[in-house]
Amino acid sequence: MDVISVIRTKRDRGELSPEQIDWVIDAYTRGEVADEQMSALAMAILLNGMNRTEIARWTAAMIASGERMNFDSLSRPTADKHSTGGVGDKITLPLAPLVAACGAAVPQLSGRGLGHTGGTLDKLESIPGWRALLSNEEMLNVLDTTGAVICAAGDGLAPADKKLYALRDVTGTVEAIPLIASSIMSKKIAEGTGSLVLDVKVGTGAFMKNIEDARELASTMVALGTDSGVKTVALLTDMSTPLGLTAGNALEVRESVEVLAGGGPADVVELTIALAREMLDAAGIKDADPAKALADGSAMDVWRRMIAAQGGDPDATLPVAREQHVITAPSSGVLTRLDAYDIGVAAWRLGAGRARKEDPVQAGAGVELHAKPGDTVTAGQPLMTLHTDTPEKFEYALESVAGSYDVAPAGTGFTANQIVLERIA
Amino acid sequence: MDVISVIRTKRDRGELSPEQIDWVIDAYTRGEVADEQMSALAMAILLNGMNRTEIARWTAAMIASGERMNFDSLSRPTADKHSTGGVGDKITLPLAPLVAACGAAVPQLSGRGLGHTGGTLDKLESIPGWRALLSNEEMLNVLDTTGAVICAAGDGLAPADKKLYALRDVTGTVEAIPLIASSIMSKKIAEGTGSLVLDVKVGTGAFMKNIEDARELASTMVALGTDSGVKTVALLTDMSTPLGLTAGNALEVRESVEVLAGGGPADVVELTIALAREMLDAAGIKDADPAKALADGSAMDVWRRMIAAQGGDPDATLPVAREQHVITAPSSGVLTRLDAYDIGVAAWRLGAGRARKEDPVQAGAGVELHAKPGDTVTAGQPLMTLHTDTPEKFEYALESVAGSYDVAPAGTGFTANQIVLERIA
Repeated sequence: MDVISVIRTKRDRGELSPEQIDWVIDAYTRGEVADEQMSALAMAILLNGMNRTEIARWTAAMIASGERMNFDSLSRPTADKHSTGGVGDKITLPLAPLVAACGAAVPQLSGRGLGHTGGTLDKLESIPGWRALLSNEEMLNVLDTTGAVICAAGDGLAPADKKLYALRDVTGTVEAIPLIASSIMSKKIAEGTGSLVLDVKVGTGAFMKNIEDARELASTMVALGTDSGVKTVALLTDMSTPLGLTAGNALEVRESVEVLAGGGPADVVELTIALAREMLDAAGIKDADPAKALADGSAMDVWRRMIAAQGGDPDATLPVAREQHVITAPSSGVLTRLDAYDIGVAAWRLGAGRARKEDPVQAGAGVELHAKPGDTVTAGQPLMTLHTDTPEKFEYALESVAGSYDVAPAGTGFTANQIVLERIA
Repeated sequence: MDVISVIRTKRDRGELSPEQIDWVIDAYTRGEVADEQMSALAMAILLNGMNRTEIARWTAAMIASGERMNFDSLSRPTADKHSTGGVGDKITLPLAPLVAACGAAVPQLSGRGLGHTGGTLDKLESIPGWRALLSNEEMLNVLDTTGAVICAAGDGLAPADKKLYALRDVTGTVEAIPLIASSIMSKKIAEGTGSLVLDVKVGTGAFMKNIEDARELASTMVALGTDSGVKTVALLTDMSTPLGLTAGNALEVRESVEVLAGGGPADVVELTIALAREMLDAAGIKDADPAKALADGSAMDVWRRMIAAQGGDPDATLPVAREQHVITAPSSGVLTRLDAYDIGVAAWRLGAGRARKEDPVQAGAGVELHAKPGDTVTAGQPLMTLHTDTPEKFEYALESVAGSYDVAPAGTGFTANQIVLERIA
């Protein structure tokens, strides 16, 4: 087996054999196949695609590159969720304790933000004392005692994916559906969850800009999970406008706590409950009522125990950015558009996100929204507040905000997007 | 400027801007753009192409990465030839002294073989004492005193191309017409020749397997040369069967000397004279007669002086391989096919070529043909002789020879391919 024949096969629109896939993933993990060879192969895959058989084998080879976790010792069924990433997507924060409160065990291995989308671990790290890095033993212990754990994936899980993801990030080969699907699913299957609900975002603020691509990614991942014995369901959900009223780290934690307290923005509550129902159903728990678990405080109880178990103080005051800048409505009428991508970029530029993996993030930075599409606004009323510790960043963030919204004359017809667009099982 | 936006432009089928091209070639040469990024870009170029404007800028940027040579001090007009590589293609050996004998100066920067195609420098190095590596000063001196020089290109010429070629070789991105054209032409333009004749090979033994690809490559290179002030002409020539009766290093030198002595195989003589006429015409030398210069020994005189000027002994006995193996005709009839690629691979496996750049080659190894397509053969007569110093290689070479020829019953119609298929100016 040699790497050039593997690259040529895909370059010339052929199908990679199982032996080629197993060999190239293993040789790349061991360093025998060089980065420049793998990036040429990744570009060929991006442009020429892989069929379902190839994607399944590619995923299996990445799983085989590392360890597999096992939750068989737990008394509860496990359910996990993965979002493909969006703006204001803090759903994991209320969702994990909510599903735990309803009887499932939720092992939520999460990531950091890159580009305009936020990362769950960055958000939780704005809680004083909270630790993202746990050993496998600590993780199992938090999961066993509180019902939920949100932490970073260990180094032993799918190391081929870690290496390949870092390579794709610097070679313009991130946006390949076969590689996105196999990257997500290799980690989730290796993690050992019994069931998995995928939240595949669609719209300007998402990786998948149109519903066809999202559908293709979702059905690819559902097939991969199902074939590996993980009960997998996907919801395609709207990401044309930010979720909730905040995009930023501490800002989103605050909003998540409001949801756990029985309040919070309607779209966040709706999506949290929809995903909770899917997770519980996939885990075989039929009689739970997630809306009630939010209302009666039982989800909040799990949240407080989970945060405390990872060193965080659930009662601590959250960081607030040093500087604020308010954007007001230029005219009276109806807010007809508020673009998720532009708001995500603004939050990122304010300091909520990072340009490189090793950059720090600001806990308090981000965008707070005072109106959402469909709301009536009056000229001069606050539309949004920008938060940052570094006010020299306002100008750059304002460039992204400038074209992010439309206010139409009062009486202009407006139909809000559904939150959940499709379900793929 | 950042490399990911450059990669994305080509990945998404856009046109690279002049600024993007200048920046990426310069940054790659300096090491700021990494190999894994350039290989992803090369694969995107291979699959999505470049238009003529992009190719011209890409070539100019590679020329600008290094020094340019200058032959203005010579009293004669310069003419160079480049072949895209074939099996048994020893034409440079008789051609350079022949054109010099007719009044042009021939600065022939040549390469080594890689894969199944032979390299001019490897062939000449089978002459005892001959040196391929000359300083720019030595090169000019040999050229000035003998009229022709065949040597390796210096490190200062188009270093971006050197680096990129080595990368393409290990990443499955060699076979991209824009990259082949810009690689060849950047070296030839930087070399400073006044005129250039391209021998673009077509057929099983060539990089370009079909006439359409060869035509595209040839017209791309002719346009690049012409736009840079180099008078450029291309001949598309047949490479479905080996040129002449030998493929190998010393074997091909011997055949070349036969041609210079006024003999040699008809196809080699025909192509040598056709290319010589084109070179002399491009150099503005109208009244020369290359056929006469072969017949009257004046080309041979230049050959002897040129070889001697680079340390070689033109009278030395050439190396002969230690072992021979004869293949005989399986039946009587007409030889209707003798495949250039299969014979090239056999010669390579016998030791005439190398698998890696740093491998040595055997001077005596190769294939000697006793019949060519169209010849009548008798069952049991020798068809070809395999030569090697390492007889354990016969078996592997025989695998390639096995399917390389067809003998049809006597009387079967046969039409030989033209040597020169098309001319593009």
